[in-house]
Amino acid sequence: MILGIDPGIANLGWGVVSTGSGRLHCEAYGHMKTKADAPVESRIQELAGLCNDLFTTYPIDQMSIEDIYYFQNKSSAITVAKVIGALYYVASLQQVAVTTYSPLQIKTTITGFGRAEKLQIQEMVRVLLGLPSIPRPDHAADALAIAICHYTQREGKERLGIYD
Amino acid sequence: MILGIDPGIANLGWGVVSTGSGRLHCEAYGHMKTKADAPVESRIQELAGLCNDLFTTYPIDQMSIEDIYYFQNKSSAITVAKVIGALYYVASLQQVAVTTYSPLQIKTTITGFGRAEKLQIQEMVRVLLGLPSIPRPDHAADALAIAICHYTQREGKERLGIYD
Repeated sequence: MILGIDPGIANLGWGVVSTGSGRLHCEAYGHMKTKADAPVESRIQELAGLCNDLFTTYPIDQMSIEDIYYFQNKSSAITVAKVIGALYYVASLQQVAVTTYSPLQIKTTITGFGRAEKLQIQEMVRVLLGLPSIPRPDHAADALAIAICHYTQREGKERLGIYD
Repeated sequence: MILGIDPGIANLGWGVVSTGSGRLHCEAYGHMKTKADAPVESRIQELAGLCNDLFTTYPIDQMSIEDIYYFQNKSSAITVAKVIGALYYVASLQQVAVTTYSPLQIKTTITGFGRAEKLQIQEMVRVLLGLPSIPRPDHAADALAIAICHYTQREGKERLGIYD
């Protein structure tokens, strides 16, 4: 199973996708929130601990995280980067491979189009996972997109059957 | 004991300072290197694992890390922030409090002067810890400065006896 993570400090989206028999299946998704008035250090520790807990519930063997490339707000980018770093260590403790993807890689992999809108990606997530509606909140849908991106990058796009 | 960390991806400085009987004592210091051709994820995991190992050697009960505030190179700042985040999680697993200080806080705390030169800070580290020479490499001296900064912030500057 692949754990996809949309990293953030106030809201972190996660999604678990299984890939048995060459088909994608949505196992679970959700999001984690931390309190704005807590110190950044403890918010990051809390998020990493909660992500670590996911490994006790799901037999996750791969982790993929959206990276930060381009940003306007230095301070929030630094904070999100810290979240990502903490998750690298979670992966290492769980002896699970972790891969980081840029937003452009995720968009391009899922929709074949680097300038796709957020809603287009979310609709592709819904279709690829055979869900009745787009997962909510957005962070969870994004996390599932990141998990699908990882699967596709690893297995090749033809496995998804979306470029027929 | 306080573990001070000067975070970096290619070179991470560390220093352990004990504070028994109100005096600062240098227990150990050093630096860790990672290979430039390894993936960032595994370099960060390696550094976090090595820092975690320090807890088995020294009875560290506090951790302090230099933060990133101002930077020119976005990419390297993001990478160093990831290292810091991974260390937050190390601290959490070791049930040790972690505090992050800005470069300005560290300079001001140690020398009383925010525009102090690097060498002035290192010389203060040498004097405060009663060492025969400035610790080398620079990253290790900086890490000891960060540990001293934490002690001073917590205990009050008068404990160092440097403002008599």
